[in-house]
Amino acid sequence: MVYALRDTACAELSSKDAGKSVVLNGWVSRRRDHGGLIFVDLRDRSGLVQVVFNPDLNPEAFRLAESLRNEYVVSISGKVALRPEGTINSNMATGEVEVLGEKLEILNEAKTPPIYITDNLEVDETVRLKYRYLDLRRSEMQRNIILRHRVTKVVRDYLDSQGFLEIETPILMKSSPEGARDFLVPSRVNPGRFFALPQSPQIFKQLLMVSGFEKYFQIARCFRDEDLRADRQPEFTQIDIEMSFLDQNMVLEMMEEMMAAVFEETLGLELKRPFPRMEYKEAMSRFGSDKPDIRFGLELVEISDLVAGCGFKVFANIVAGGGKVVGINVPGCAGYTRSQLDELSPLAATYGAKGLAYLVLAEDGVKSPIAKFFTETELQQIIDRFGAKTGDLILLVADKPAVAQIAMGQVRLEFGRRLNLIPENTFHFLWVINFPLLEYDEEEQRYVAVHHMFTAPLPEDEAKLESDPGNVRSNSYDLVLNGVELGGGSLRIYQRCLQERMFKAIGMSMDEARDKFGYLMDAFEYGTPPHGGIAFGLDRMVMLMTGSNSIRDVIAFPKTASATCLMTNAPSEVTPRQLKELSIKTTV
Amino acid sequence: MVYALRDTACAELSSKDAGKSVVLNGWVSRRRDHGGLIFVDLRDRSGLVQVVFNPDLNPEAFRLAESLRNEYVVSISGKVALRPEGTINSNMATGEVEVLGEKLEILNEAKTPPIYITDNLEVDETVRLKYRYLDLRRSEMQRNIILRHRVTKVVRDYLDSQGFLEIETPILMKSSPEGARDFLVPSRVNPGRFFALPQSPQIFKQLLMVSGFEKYFQIARCFRDEDLRADRQPEFTQIDIEMSFLDQNMVLEMMEEMMAAVFEETLGLELKRPFPRMEYKEAMSRFGSDKPDIRFGLELVEISDLVAGCGFKVFANIVAGGGKVVGINVPGCAGYTRSQLDELSPLAATYGAKGLAYLVLAEDGVKSPIAKFFTETELQQIIDRFGAKTGDLILLVADKPAVAQIAMGQVRLEFGRRLNLIPENTFHFLWVINFPLLEYDEEEQRYVAVHHMFTAPLPEDEAKLESDPGNVRSNSYDLVLNGVELGGGSLRIYQRCLQERMFKAIGMSMDEARDKFGYLMDAFEYGTPPHGGIAFGLDRMVMLMTGSNSIRDVIAFPKTASATCLMTNAPSEVTPRQLKELSIKTTV
Repeated sequence: MVYALRDTACAELSSKDAGKSVVLNGWVSRRRDHGGLIFVDLRDRSGLVQVVFNPDLNPEAFRLAESLRNEYVVSISGKVALRPEGTINSNMATGEVEVLGEKLEILNEAKTPPIYITDNLEVDETVRLKYRYLDLRRSEMQRNIILRHRVTKVVRDYLDSQGFLEIETPILMKSSPEGARDFLVPSRVNPGRFFALPQSPQIFKQLLMVSGFEKYFQIARCFRDEDLRADRQPEFTQIDIEMSFLDQNMVLEMMEEMMAAVFEETLGLELKRPFPRMEYKEAMSRFGSDKPDIRFGLELVEISDLVAGCGFKVFANIVAGGGKVVGINVPGCAGYTRSQLDELSPLAATYGAKGLAYLVLAEDGVKSPIAKFFTETELQQIIDRFGAKTGDLILLVADKPAVAQIAMGQVRLEFGRRLNLIPENTFHFLWVINFPLLEYDEEEQRYVAVHHMFTAPLPEDEAKLESDPGNVRSNSYDLVLNGVELGGGSLRIYQRCLQERMFKAIGMSMDEARDKFGYLMDAFEYGTPPHGGIAFGLDRMVMLMTGSNSIRDVIAFPKTASATCLMTNAPSEVTPRQLKELSIKTTV
Repeated sequence: MVYALRDTACAELSSKDAGKSVVLNGWVSRRRDHGGLIFVDLRDRSGLVQVVFNPDLNPEAFRLAESLRNEYVVSISGKVALRPEGTINSNMATGEVEVLGEKLEILNEAKTPPIYITDNLEVDETVRLKYRYLDLRRSEMQRNIILRHRVTKVVRDYLDSQGFLEIETPILMKSSPEGARDFLVPSRVNPGRFFALPQSPQIFKQLLMVSGFEKYFQIARCFRDEDLRADRQPEFTQIDIEMSFLDQNMVLEMMEEMMAAVFEETLGLELKRPFPRMEYKEAMSRFGSDKPDIRFGLELVEISDLVAGCGFKVFANIVAGGGKVVGINVPGCAGYTRSQLDELSPLAATYGAKGLAYLVLAEDGVKSPIAKFFTETELQQIIDRFGAKTGDLILLVADKPAVAQIAMGQVRLEFGRRLNLIPENTFHFLWVINFPLLEYDEEEQRYVAVHHMFTAPLPEDEAKLESDPGNVRSNSYDLVLNGVELGGGSLRIYQRCLQERMFKAIGMSMDEARDKFGYLMDAFEYGTPPHGGIAFGLDRMVMLMTGSNSIRDVIAFPKTASATCLMTNAPSEVTPRQLKELSIKTTV
């Protein structure tokens, strides 16, 4: 052996080990010289332990220790000792002991790192990303990556125990005309042709059901070449699940059990089950969102009926035209000034609402530019409907139903934050179920699928597919955690006759469908079982579990918002020879 | 519910269930009409069970059963019954029982499948690949995919139990000037630039060691845009492992334990440990291969010393020039005719040898065109060295050492097959260790790395790096199973001074290295621990375990030898708009 191999991990040591001889390998986290001794905080993946070099006891080791600097890699042999009275460090897991260094070997030196290897690092993220291999040494990043490993392990264990098979589907697949933008891969062997990277294994997982595997899953890498918003990555990871011979309840119960196992085994938290289930329609009307944050109240209240015939023509006309008037009551905010109130309007406007009205319930009566349009009785009815009291502030939006609800939902979230109504460190799961199957696309002048065109309608709504397509609900479900969508799925259409009706509803002929989804349509004709599934965003899930601010903090080597890797400088230019072999040219 | 959901899997049923009411969901595997009854073999993932429809007992179900055809998807409710005396089918796991069908629902119909859903299917593979979703219904394919799932599960369980973390590394990475040809992905956001798909996570796994994760693994998708040989895939899966603070023995023992767990838990086989270890040099001299099939003997024998000064100038000159004369003794093959013997020459020639000499040990003496060049004593010495006896056939190649050994190694394999010396259904593992670190490249007139330039030399050979580079062994290891390389790895260079010597040995300056491996060289300066690892080809491993003839039989959706998917027709043409967005043009 060229150096003494460790027999112990740093953080394993405790007072029980006093007197034991150990070999440790790790990094110098910190060196201090004090009272003629050298103290080294030695770090390995397990944590830290203090090593002391004493010139009287081991002059040779001490002399070498004088050359130690932060992040040097060392092998240290020594004896575990209880720390002297008064030097016990209760902030450190191994704070009751120290190792008396007898032999020191420097395995590798280190330049001064450009970032501190410490938690709560305040440094520009671009520096962290450029030196990602150092950023990942910080214990908070180590914790995140370790938790991510544990989450996927528990998911795999649970699904395996339920008879699910993990089956790998291709990364080099066919480009699809539907959905988001594909990443393309030019084929050298087939010049002029391209593979696409999968946006999800959706088609393959459905084909695996046609193949009779019955229960499939995959922790699958997916790719979307979208303009990146703050917290999107061009490649991301999905817990992808599909099964045959099922109903909606089976999926929901199984996934709750899986999440419970994950939270219990990784965070030691017991989740309350069953998770509440809420129809999409209810989620929209109560929270103005298809992914409500149910950690706090401030629920939306509709007053369309109360203002239908009122003197305020804006409200009355909107209600007459099929719109809604909805609002929230913000307790104790009657003190908001005119300009504070005016600042709220743009917030609602972002989501399409044309304005935000308010009623201030002041000590001396209702203050509002629109109060004068209402009778006393009407005003009282409105206040009663909100359960508002003096000192409160009622905010109102009137618009098309979805616009009014969504805008008000955003205002609700804003006040949840402003009023500190959102408890931290709690996990509130919610199923939002039975989304609309179709929505009318004004531009295309036809109905389009809300999820995708293989999503099944609810059995009880199937009959309305021709007569009332806008009111058909799909057999679908999203899992929401603290107002963030963790994932979702649906039961699929598996019978040809229903599929034809679905195509008809969205104005597509069977021939056109065959053109677009040829092999899938073929496959469906050879005995397709009833099937359905779900997919969860792993990155987002681990982000919520670790309390991270960004999915970049739970991905070992993430890309920036402009889809580059600051560490490796990918993407990069390639050689003319590489392009020639691929039969392509760049046009820049 | 729209149909009766199953409560039982077909193959779970046995005589113990007689009298029980069950609901089954599955596929009609076969329908027979006999004695006024309809018999259906119902199939789900678990297996088959026979269902009987009797017109007297359930006229309605019987009438519907008359419309059943192969691969229809059905839900059947009925009572389990013992089969009547004389109708027990011992070839079927559930052959003692049948289900008396009371209620039948047809969940989906099926066209006549283009291939039979049966084992030992004799049909062109292109048809199987085109209808992969049906091919995968066949029980041998189901077994393969299920075994693959189990193998990866056991690997993950084992590595997790040893403290390894599964960490995902990017699929969209930087193109590297070294190694095989990269698949490229044009970047839309960064026009003119490209990502590359990883040939392996090598660089990232080393960076994770720099990050202090100490034990990493990943079941990782890898990509190589090579001209495909019969059994290569453009994307393949690797069990990728790296660890810090280790020696060679630790890696080997841990991997043996992992393989033992895999074989025990998936095939119920106990592997004999420790696996034999053989120096590369010994493997070459005894078997003429760096991946010897040790399931049989026919070992190579060297007679260079015996023929060094002999009258056969071809042999004598080759030995004088540093070459070797090696051969094998093929027992009982003295009867080979002249033309049979001549047919062997091309076999050796494929691997670079200029000819194959032979000595036939006939009843009436040694027959050979070259016998006359040897003295009686020389001939006897050769025969004795081989331990040959009358009736045997000695085959000889004289050439440069490696050429002679490799050619003879191939002849050995050929006779192993011809003489049926290779036992089936046994698994012989072997470590081949300590490969040469460098080999001289005649074309480039310099030494090149045999593995890659971060592979560490053996500590005991390090001193020879400048004085005798061709004889420095690397700290490397390949795991060989039945003559097939399952994987390999090495300990890496982690110290700057040794890395500089290595670069010098291959004629590369530190500046040039920094140009090529910039961020990696940087990373290595911030406290890199001693580390090393290994990677196994999962596809190949599962192929050997299932006794499949091709890795395509253990991949759910493989590509053909010309890198196309016959089911989806990928790669395909894409729209001009897609290319324009990516700032590329095709040149075909």
